[in-house]
Amino acid sequence: MHPLDAATKLETSGDRSRGATSDAYWNFTGPFGGATAATLLKAAMDHPARQNLPLAMTINYCAPVAKGAFDLHVAEKRTNRSTQHFAVEMKQGSDTIITSTLVFAARPEGFLHTPGAMPKVRQPEEIEAPKATAPLAWIGRFDMRFASGFPSMRKDDAAPLGSPRTEVWMRDNPSRRMDFLSLMNMSDAFFARPFHVLGRLIQVGTVSMTTYFHCDEADLAEVGDDYVLGVADASVFAKGYADQAAWLWSRSGKLLATSQQILYFRDKPFVPGGKK
Amino acid sequence: MHPLDAATKLETSGDRSRGATSDAYWNFTGPFGGATAATLLKAAMDHPARQNLPLAMTINYCAPVAKGAFDLHVAEKRTNRSTQHFAVEMKQGSDTIITSTLVFAARPEGFLHTPGAMPKVRQPEEIEAPKATAPLAWIGRFDMRFASGFPSMRKDDAAPLGSPRTEVWMRDNPSRRMDFLSLMNMSDAFFARPFHVLGRLIQVGTVSMTTYFHCDEADLAEVGDDYVLGVADASVFAKGYADQAAWLWSRSGKLLATSQQILYFRDKPFVPGGKK
Repeated sequence: MHPLDAATKLETSGDRSRGATSDAYWNFTGPFGGATAATLLKAAMDHPARQNLPLAMTINYCAPVAKGAFDLHVAEKRTNRSTQHFAVEMKQGSDTIITSTLVFAARPEGFLHTPGAMPKVRQPEEIEAPKATAPLAWIGRFDMRFASGFPSMRKDDAAPLGSPRTEVWMRDNPSRRMDFLSLMNMSDAFFARPFHVLGRLIQVGTVSMTTYFHCDEADLAEVGDDYVLGVADASVFAKGYADQAAWLWSRSGKLLATSQQILYFRDKPFVPGGKK
Repeated sequence: MHPLDAATKLETSGDRSRGATSDAYWNFTGPFGGATAATLLKAAMDHPARQNLPLAMTINYCAPVAKGAFDLHVAEKRTNRSTQHFAVEMKQGSDTIITSTLVFAARPEGFLHTPGAMPKVRQPEEIEAPKATAPLAWIGRFDMRFASGFPSMRKDDAAPLGSPRTEVWMRDNPSRRMDFLSLMNMSDAFFARPFHVLGRLIQVGTVSMTTYFHCDEADLAEVGDDYVLGVADASVFAKGYADQAAWLWSRSGKLLATSQQILYFRDKPFVPGGKK
């Protein structure tokens, strides 16, 4: 079984699902947030009342996910003719760990227009994988080829700040046929923008992330197990929080998803297990 | 009482608040979504357990808000040392009309960096208000000065598509001291991008919107009742939905908020009361 399928595996009974964290996606203090988002998305997709395709998902990381089992509570909030709203919460014991809202929608063909421009970058086959990677399991779950914006550490505070922009070809490692779970997972697979700008490993954590899907199953089938081009950027770092905007493009130029998140950061050395 | 204060007025008892729609913010089929978002934000801010400042809010418009009274259910989901999570739902009778999640956070001073660039545009005093406005009450609740991207109607399908980008100075009308409610309200105060691109009045509606706040009360006090510069853009129109990204800048160059939304659109003439 592919690690992403193992990480998102659930035992479902009615509105409740039970799963467990995956060491294969371990991050600093808990599982990688993208895999957690994919798991909650799967819980909603598996709901017997679910109709149509994922359109939007917001996930709020309320507390670190502890290693081990978790419960997901899926609530169907509203079903219309072509849109449907769910909320999914993760609990560990009586603690609320994650809240999320999801929208599903019918996606008719029709007017198609992409004013956002896919960056012209080298093809992934022309780019080597990074030689050094951090010893975090989740990073190994992606084959990343940086066309621009690989994070570099600053020697000292006199060095200029780094750019918040990254262009990186990504696919699952091992490769896996693209689906909504993988796309949700990838929408969080950018290194934290504060690392890129400040050029040091500081305390960071995503607090809330929203992903919009602009594709249907035929678009995903067209991607297959090919790379997608991820572009990430940021507008502001202020009062302990930074934003991130991201775009995920198929190689053929379809904008599959857009995503945004707000991250906590403190310009202090990373301390495992630190609480916000 | 200012129309925004009247629209967001609530009678609160414990975790429940009761309010009513405001004709002063009426849109095509219900109240303007920005004012509704501000009302749910107020319900969470008024909660006795609320700590610190708004950081992030996601609102899902599940169904049209009917004219009249509504109930808001506020749930405190998790309180950490410096972050706090709420969910607020709007009900009319037993129907779920809106779901939302909100994050509040302490905002310490520290590293400040704004790689996003505020556009250089004419000052609002150099720009006249639009001569023609649609006969919708909510539009009159804003004093808008378009520096670029005022929507223009296309004569026919042979005419080139419009740009999705708008730069518009905005303030409340009548003017009002800026606060988080006003900022939330304004983050939705852009005309729907599909109008701008397709150049005709078609069926549109925001399905989900997320706003991140990058400011504290001192920043808002500095704005006072001055204009803020709103910038809106879009990356994609596909399969019946379009995205929108927005930035709200103070005149002095502080990025007060960023916002994104996904909108339903159908290239059909607008029909009042249409259901998604």
